[in-house]
Amino acid sequence: MTLLERHDTDGIARLTLNAPDRLNALSDAMLAALSAEIAALREDRETRVVLLSGAGRAFCAGHDLKEMQAGRQAEDAGAAYFADLFTRCAAVMTGLRDLPQPVIALPHGIATAAGCQLIASCDMAIAAEGTRFGVNGVNIGLFCSTPMVALSRNIPRKQAFEMLTTGEMIDCARAAELGLINRAVPHEALEEEGLALARKVAAKLSTAIRIGKSAFYRQMEMDLDSAYAFTGAAMVENMLDGDTNEGIQAFLEKRSPGWARD
Amino acid sequence: MTLLERHDTDGIARLTLNAPDRLNALSDAMLAALSAEIAALREDRETRVVLLSGAGRAFCAGHDLKEMQAGRQAEDAGAAYFADLFTRCAAVMTGLRDLPQPVIALPHGIATAAGCQLIASCDMAIAAEGTRFGVNGVNIGLFCSTPMVALSRNIPRKQAFEMLTTGEMIDCARAAELGLINRAVPHEALEEEGLALARKVAAKLSTAIRIGKSAFYRQMEMDLDSAYAFTGAAMVENMLDGDTNEGIQAFLEKRSPGWARD
Amino acid sequence: MTLLERHDTDGIARLTLNAPDRLNALSDAMLAALSAEIAALREDRETRVVLLSGAGRAFCAGHDLKEMQAGRQAEDAGAAYFADLFTRCAAVMTGLRDLPQPVIALPHGIATAAGCQLIASCDMAIAAEGTRFGVNGVNIGLFCSTPMVALSRNIPRKQAFEMLTTGEMIDCARAAELGLINRAVPHEALEEEGLALARKVAAKLSTAIRIGKSAFYRQMEMDLDSAYAFTGAAMVENMLDGDTNEGIQAFLEKRSPGWARD
Repeated sequence: MTLLERHDTDGIARLTLNAPDRLNALSDAMLAALSAEIAALREDRETRVVLLSGAGRAFCAGHDLKEMQAGRQAEDAGAAYFADLFTRCAAVMTGLRDLPQPVIALPHGIATAAGCQLIASCDMAIAAEGTRFGVNGVNIGLFCSTPMVALSRNIPRKQAFEMLTTGEMIDCARAAELGLINRAVPHEALEEEGLALARKVAAKLSTAIRIGKSAFYRQMEMDLDSAYAFTGAAMVENMLDGDTNEGIQAFLEKRSPGWARD
Repeated sequence: MTLLERHDTDGIARLTLNAPDRLNALSDAMLAALSAEIAALREDRETRVVLLSGAGRAFCAGHDLKEMQAGRQAEDAGAAYFADLFTRCAAVMTGLRDLPQPVIALPHGIATAAGCQLIASCDMAIAAEGTRFGVNGVNIGLFCSTPMVALSRNIPRKQAFEMLTTGEMIDCARAAELGLINRAVPHEALEEEGLALARKVAAKLSTAIRIGKSAFYRQMEMDLDSAYAFTGAAMVENMLDGDTNEGIQAFLEKRSPGWARD
Repeated sequence: MTLLERHDTDGIARLTLNAPDRLNALSDAMLAALSAEIAALREDRETRVVLLSGAGRAFCAGHDLKEMQAGRQAEDAGAAYFADLFTRCAAVMTGLRDLPQPVIALPHGIATAAGCQLIASCDMAIAAEGTRFGVNGVNIGLFCSTPMVALSRNIPRKQAFEMLTTGEMIDCARAAELGLINRAVPHEALEEEGLALARKVAAKLSTAIRIGKSAFYRQMEMDLDSAYAFTGAAMVENMLDGDTNEGIQAFLEKRSPGWARD
């Protein structure tokens, strides 16, 4: 049994956090496993979409608190370890953004703290009905400052502030309303709905998806004029792709495209 | 029959994309017509509000794909033409932002790709019930990278990402919920509701609207402190306008303002 | 009777705008009172949460228009006075952000122009049902350019633009939907619900809340990578706090934390 399972089918990589007895905590080992898988996926031209689930009764309950407390034994009371831990954790979160493939989170049960951050860091999310989401570190004295980076880029300001300072959980209906997830489906349909969305995206021209995903996050951090200059160049690159030529031509001729690279 | 019709009534300019047989595609000629009209409106002190509609069965289906494919005949396979095309298209979109007048989109039928971008680029939008919105270039291999600039500044992140990578359409209820449009009305009421909103805004002091619209987009790209410094100066300019003096005085005296310039 | 009442109970400071005959207008004197209270609260380690209400029939109707008109008597027609006024007003709004304590607005009745800005500038807001919100300066020729800074960071773009250019009011249901308030409660429950939220937040470790609130607004103005570097450091600071150590340890040992400083 590995900490992070991976199953590949038809260009779809299904990653499963697999430490159910620890609610799939983002331990050093789990972060290393995620990091390794992300590095592999970056170079992996066969994989078109990534699905991310958790084994057991929760998607992910955040950092491994026991491990963090053990870090305090160092001479510096853990300062260097904690700094490194949050750097490694952030690298996983931004690594998901930097992947050429869209990543879809499929949470169920509970997603708290860095587990909630993981969902917010994925490109899309479908949750099992009944999933509860929270950034509840504040309840034990540790404000979810890093999870808030991802959360506050998904949901409105006052609603994020309330979750962060009260530590209260929200349900799926609220998460969908606020923009943290795309939608919720019955738990028994989660696998099927996740796969259906993955297959839909996997059926697109992967060059277009790669160009688009990369441009999506970069242009959002630019002013409007810079964003247009940047994405205009992305459109040109996309247009000059031979398969895009074929895709447009096929559309104009009302036939299916014969894509070479896909 | 002109490509872009304009009718002016009571300070309201109604622009209608008028290439219904091509679903009002943003061809080179259409972009040139929009660009010319935007340039004219920038200097036009009589016009207080702009309405933007489409003739025929769709608001706008995006770029003119036939024309784009023809661009590939050049020695550089179209690279220069495409770069120029996206620059001209972005200039139209940012030109709407830079107009002194508020621009209200009145979409109906279908608004896809750059047609959806056009709506997202307007200041407000009222849609005819039944309108469907999409950034579906991905379906033919061309990711809607430039439309995404406008779209992702109107609606939440995960919802924008899903539209962009699945190419699926959303209906009016969803568009209103996400923030892409202000609201939907029955198709037969679209003209009337659009005019009513335009008249409401046109009845305001145009100096105040001009100052405010310009400040709206500029301050959104600033940090909070810079935004306050910038808009504070805008408030002073607004206060020093003679008609604003009269407007406030009239309010305090419980009478209607006698505005000189309006 | 003071212009800004303050009552402290159990670490919760309740501020009440108290110029009901002027709808709690943000006059020079009221801004000075708010500024003084904010300065005091910044250094006040006993106070953990701030509540902000208005006496009388409205929360706050914005600037004091009579006073502003009187400012026009100066040789420069008020230019220097207005510039100073908007600087002082912005300092109050950003001062709320810069407080170590979360600030919860409890509006009722009417919240217009700078009164609406005040709500948007607080960290959270619970409104009495029936409260109406507007940025309606445009109706008298003065676009709400400074209120728009706060408003447009709370609610989506097209919806903010409509409020600003039409001057129309929105009700509580709409305000909650758009993100301007966290929720509405019956007027008779406002006090109780506001206190309940305040007590919930006040029960957290104040060091964690202070670190988190400060990081919240700063990271939102950064790109994603900078935001993670910044909040990573905040997490380390938080982890090294002795009470946080105790909070996590208590959680792992399934007991209540014995916090020293709280």
